[in-house]
Amino acid sequence: MTAARRRMMILTEGQLGVFTAKTATCLVRYCPDEVVCVLDSVAAKSGHPLESFLSVGANVPIVSSVEEGLEFAPTQLVIGIAPVGGRLPDAWRAIVLASIRAGLDVVSGLHHILGDDREFAAAAKTHRVQIRDVRTAPPDLGVAQDLLRGLKQRRVSIVGSDCSVGKMLTALELSKALCARGWDCDWAATGQTGILIQGSGIAVDHVISDYVNGAAERLCYERRDREIVIVEGQGSVYHPAYSGVTVGLLHGAMPHTMVFVHQPSRKEVWHYGNFPLPPIAQGIALCEALMAPIHPAKVAAIALNTVDLDAAEADNVIRAIERETGLPACDPIRQGSSKLAVAVEAALAIKK
Amino acid sequence: MTAARRRMMILTEGQLGVFTAKTATCLVRYCPDEVVCVLDSVAAKSGHPLESFLSVGANVPIVSSVEEGLEFAPTQLVIGIAPVGGRLPDAWRAIVLASIRAGLDVVSGLHHILGDDREFAAAAKTHRVQIRDVRTAPPDLGVAQDLLRGLKQRRVSIVGSDCSVGKMLTALELSKALCARGWDCDWAATGQTGILIQGSGIAVDHVISDYVNGAAERLCYERRDREIVIVEGQGSVYHPAYSGVTVGLLHGAMPHTMVFVHQPSRKEVWHYGNFPLPPIAQGIALCEALMAPIHPAKVAAIALNTVDLDAAEADNVIRAIERETGLPACDPIRQGSSKLAVAVEAALAIKK
Repeated sequence: MTAARRRMMILTEGQLGVFTAKTATCLVRYCPDEVVCVLDSVAAKSGHPLESFLSVGANVPIVSSVEEGLEFAPTQLVIGIAPVGGRLPDAWRAIVLASIRAGLDVVSGLHHILGDDREFAAAAKTHRVQIRDVRTAPPDLGVAQDLLRGLKQRRVSIVGSDCSVGKMLTALELSKALCARGWDCDWAATGQTGILIQGSGIAVDHVISDYVNGAAERLCYERRDREIVIVEGQGSVYHPAYSGVTVGLLHGAMPHTMVFVHQPSRKEVWHYGNFPLPPIAQGIALCEALMAPIHPAKVAAIALNTVDLDAAEADNVIRAIERETGLPACDPIRQGSSKLAVAVEAALAIKK
Repeated sequence: MTAARRRMMILTEGQLGVFTAKTATCLVRYCPDEVVCVLDSVAAKSGHPLESFLSVGANVPIVSSVEEGLEFAPTQLVIGIAPVGGRLPDAWRAIVLASIRAGLDVVSGLHHILGDDREFAAAAKTHRVQIRDVRTAPPDLGVAQDLLRGLKQRRVSIVGSDCSVGKMLTALELSKALCARGWDCDWAATGQTGILIQGSGIAVDHVISDYVNGAAERLCYERRDREIVIVEGQGSVYHPAYSGVTVGLLHGAMPHTMVFVHQPSRKEVWHYGNFPLPPIAQGIALCEALMAPIHPAKVAAIALNTVDLDAAEADNVIRAIERETGLPACDPIRQGSSKLAVAVEAALAIKK
């Protein structure tokens, strides 16, 4: 999705099949042409294919060293899984250094900022490669400045009932569906995995709180020549810990319409079990009430994550939620996203 | 309001009467026993009393040097006004260094972090004084953790229609009024001026966005033994630039009731003139809708800032807003805060 095609070697060293590698899985699923190999010496030794670990990536080779990976001509090493314990293990240090010496850029979603590491920084300078820490906020970020007023661009914010319900996936799938329908559409990544997939974006939860709205505004303004921009959401507008991020992101993007994402089996806020989720209609009404005073926007459709339901249950729950809310709903993975795309076009009053 | 009484020398060097010194004015007004002198060589030379510059502080001496100020036995130099251009002028550097050498702590609300300045840090170490940058976030801050559940403490969030309408002043006045009625009440400062007045607090707009709710939670949890805690608000829940800060702060505090602050003459968002303010009832309804899913709380009363109206106009507008909203309203400066205190007690269903 970036202009210059990336060729990624993804580092999962020793963790394939041990931890759920959300980032690796998403990169392989959504950037299949850009992932040239996965570096994991333990998995390589097992002889099992990548698909047996991630359910995707049948044709992606697993290599056991940087040297071996170089055969597939990667341009960057991507670290998309956190090391156990948070500290960078020595084995990983050696891999990062070997990659830099081999002329690869290093892209990291870790909390540990690799660019601040003196040894890595010095090596990167010597070998003229870039270290990109995707969690680092742009240094020149500031408060929102009402830059989006008057742009022709139409904006769609992805909101939802909780963390980890499928907002990034919905942004990505809806963007694909709108592109397929002839629109010049792009989506803006606001979290680590999305940024690694997109190759751009801002991890909005890591910017100074004063600048959250400004970060969202910048992501849209950078895409001002696109016909439609989808903004990945974070958290929920009533999340006990992350609502500040959510609301700043929503207001900063000044959307013309929204898509609400929910996992019907989820009954409490993820990791905050004392907080029951409110009815979906209440969540939708709250998102709309937040937009009403400054940039009125309605929820156009509902994306449902029914991964933990069988086909019949999924069908029932989707229809029940459509009846309850009066809005079109679907599971973008089971059913595709054209229903969402049609609803968004109608809400934006645009037609190809 | 802190246990150990501070004796403040306030630095306004060359800016008294040139700029509105909100922080100096508030410190002199609200901490009259703690401000021992104001250091401003230009104003000292003019021979005019402090009151002629700030409308308060008739008895506070203006001195022209650190040496002269030492006669009043200050324990700290407080920098509460920003230097023109943002950079610390050389004259101010010399004053800060002379204060450190004289054994004074230095308290600063500047964006420029004084503690990160090598010369200041070295001098502070040598002379065993503290440099306190009130905008710096506590290093161990994290996400909200549902710590307030089950506390006996009652919490009141101050919300409002915009920045700079009087939320800090309302927090402070309401806290005084509740203390006067016999409650063990404290208020938590969340912005620079409030922190300087209180001697504690967190500048919530300068924490990482992920930690805004957590910062508010911590301010309340630190005061868990108080009967009532008032939390100073920031911005507004529909502010185009700061709503992330506002909502995170509101949810993190998990208030039992709220007081809404408004300046009736204000028609657009301050510094964001393209955004008209919504009707006050809509702002109140939105605050209540945000709390409903996780910790239901209603607005108990309205504090109005009528500084730019004459007495008859103020009276009319206060009564009109009471009719419009069905809530008790008053101007805490003109009329005192007992009406607010009574309404808050009723909302909390508590009585002394």
